[in-house]
Amino acid sequence: MAISKDKKKIEELLSRGVENIYPSKEFLRKRLQEGKQLTLYTGYDPTAPTLHVGHGITLLKLRQFQNLGHKIIILIGDFTGMIGDPTDKSAARQRLTRKQVLENAKMYKKQASKILNLTGKNKAEIKYNSKWLGKMSFADVVELGSHFTVQRMMERDMFEKRMKDGKPIYVHEFMYPMMQGYDCVAMDVDGEVGGNDQTFNMLAGRSLMKDLKKKEKFVLTTRLLTDTTGAKMGKTTGNMIAFNDAPEDIYGKVMSWNDEMIVSGFELCTQVSIDKINKIKNHLKVGKNPRDAKAQLAFEITALFTSPAKAKTAEKHFAKTFQKKENPDDMAEVVVAETVLNIIDALVHADLASSKSDARRVIQGGGVKVDNKKIIDPKSDIKINKQGVVVQKGKRFFARIMLG
Amino acid sequence: MAISKDKKKIEELLSRGVENIYPSKEFLRKRLQEGKQLTLYTGYDPTAPTLHVGHGITLLKLRQFQNLGHKIIILIGDFTGMIGDPTDKSAARQRLTRKQVLENAKMYKKQASKILNLTGKNKAEIKYNSKWLGKMSFADVVELGSHFTVQRMMERDMFEKRMKDGKPIYVHEFMYPMMQGYDCVAMDVDGEVGGNDQTFNMLAGRSLMKDLKKKEKFVLTTRLLTDTTGAKMGKTTGNMIAFNDAPEDIYGKVMSWNDEMIVSGFELCTQVSIDKINKIKNHLKVGKNPRDAKAQLAFEITALFTSPAKAKTAEKHFAKTFQKKENPDDMAEVVVAETVLNIIDALVHADLASSKSDARRVIQGGGVKVDNKKIIDPKSDIKINKQGVVVQKGKRFFARIMLG
Repeated sequence: MAISKDKKKIEELLSRGVENIYPSKEFLRKRLQEGKQLTLYTGYDPTAPTLHVGHGITLLKLRQFQNLGHKIIILIGDFTGMIGDPTDKSAARQRLTRKQVLENAKMYKKQASKILNLTGKNKAEIKYNSKWLGKMSFADVVELGSHFTVQRMMERDMFEKRMKDGKPIYVHEFMYPMMQGYDCVAMDVDGEVGGNDQTFNMLAGRSLMKDLKKKEKFVLTTRLLTDTTGAKMGKTTGNMIAFNDAPEDIYGKVMSWNDEMIVSGFELCTQVSIDKINKIKNHLKVGKNPRDAKAQLAFEITALFTSPAKAKTAEKHFAKTFQKKENPDDMAEVVVAETVLNIIDALVHADLASSKSDARRVIQGGGVKVDNKKIIDPKSDIKINKQGVVVQKGKRFFARIMLG
Repeated sequence: MAISKDKKKIEELLSRGVENIYPSKEFLRKRLQEGKQLTLYTGYDPTAPTLHVGHGITLLKLRQFQNLGHKIIILIGDFTGMIGDPTDKSAARQRLTRKQVLENAKMYKKQASKILNLTGKNKAEIKYNSKWLGKMSFADVVELGSHFTVQRMMERDMFEKRMKDGKPIYVHEFMYPMMQGYDCVAMDVDGEVGGNDQTFNMLAGRSLMKDLKKKEKFVLTTRLLTDTTGAKMGKTTGNMIAFNDAPEDIYGKVMSWNDEMIVSGFELCTQVSIDKINKIKNHLKVGKNPRDAKAQLAFEITALFTSPAKAKTAEKHFAKTFQKKENPDDMAEVVVAETVLNIIDALVHADLASSKSDARRVIQGGGVKVDNKKIIDPKSDIKINKQGVVVQKGKRFFARIMLG
């Protein structure tokens, strides 16, 4: 396959959703303009049974490289996954069995095929890092360790912080970046793409490539999709979108995003052209209702993760089910005979929770308001009158409970 | 073999040449008084072709345990030896081949048999740590690393110092104590004996034994034989005694020790009884000539490293060859025709150097005096007169060069 040197495409690749390029944007531009096929990769530890929107962002970036004719490798960290990246503390504790890892890897392959070409000409290749890491002996690990200084490892934000806080850093936590570094060497790649939370690990590989292969590996970090507080999308906020979510859920979750995330969402999570995104940006700037743009974004993301047909269905479902409830003037009304109701019972009664335990969880998570006042004690009682009290779950679900 | 609980022997074991016992002297005393066989070891990395006096000190301590009926293991670090202990910087750089390691190990076994019982009843066992360390995978190393914190590693003097000085510490340098720690676990020992420069590594093993085996491994560190400046015997001062030195050399080197080292030398490097050592100590205190005590020490150490017969011969050789020369009144006289002689020529001529290059080396090493004044420039000339000038090499070799 011929390598495209299309200037506009190269510039989009170098800027859209990009946080940083090492050693520099100019370096990568030059390499892309050489017209030679580059080999680059991203690595996913198969620690969960599904990819999520964060992986989608790197996959879309890789697709841009693939569209230009470059060679893509998806590296399944079946070895590293059994150990866990200390970047993510919970993952560090979780040790997966070989079977789980392989099941997850199978799912990842299927999901990645939604975005990358995994079957045709210049198809992306799937590799597994147990192939080389699994063969390494203690002596090999020692040799590898001789290429990394403790001082360099300690520069890592999370380690520096733990050191300052007097919290333990375990020696094996240094080994994860060493392993990830060795992946580059074993595959002899030209570059690596990943989220900016992987910068440290990717740069560890960059320095190892210099040491062992005398090669300037480029590293491209993509921006993270953050909510308005700057928190990483997903895990903490519960608005994580997984590839295996039902289309209706994907659609609904995007609709729950803050309006400030719309433009970033288009840039990072869709293939909508920059020209179109600029038009949307202008519409929003002149004060047009963001709901249409968000709906379009929800459609695009749902279509990408599932299919356009399923996205269409999800769109209709959302309009029918939620949009009415979203308008407090038009909310469901529930008539009860009691003047006092426990908040858990009220939620279940109004169909805002599927069970008592679901209701309790939501209340304790801070997601419930009564007449606009947050209720956090599941034992709270609410008084019901003839005018009705408004019970709200999250941002989108309301019910008026009235004495009948 | 029955385990001896002889109180006097136990107390000698707990104190003679002992720097420290972990967790405590009381702990080890109690264990020794239980009357059960303990298994303990010392580890030697076969990085040099011979054991030296430092190893002799630990071997003598192990012999005391063996005499009580306990089980001794000499661990040959054939795996760690290929990597090198960062405690010794030069060793860390030196990577030995498998062949070298095995040749050295063979020599160690032969030399250790001078002090330990390696063949009879309750014989000491020789083990090789490649047996377990050589089988460990990257995943095993990660698991091992999870038992050590970076903070603990950094407490090590040498690392702390390098950190402060901004000098690199390499990640693989953390792996040496991990390996040594794992040795204890693999052999499931009750204790370890080593020089106090090995304290950090031995305590790493102690904590790992607690973690993995719920066992209180005791660690006994022996004092190091130091010269009067406190410098470790041997390497820096050139007075290192090796097991494979010629008996005459061993004898002569001990005779060159400072008088202040005599008592320590007896305690650490001989099997002379504490009672006798106390007598020697008293003799020295009341001002008796230390030469006789030193000669006895030289004999003991030579006999231990070689044999009593060889020590006797070495003693005679020393008396005949050196003691005359040692007395400046009785020194060799050399008559020359020149009024001016280059210092190199003078040394060779007076038979104080075997060659010109030998002479140059000694001068540059600061070992030459003329009429009690140090000469360090090999190009120096000396003036010869009828009375003669006294040329001295080191402490023990003199000649008077006279104009004839």
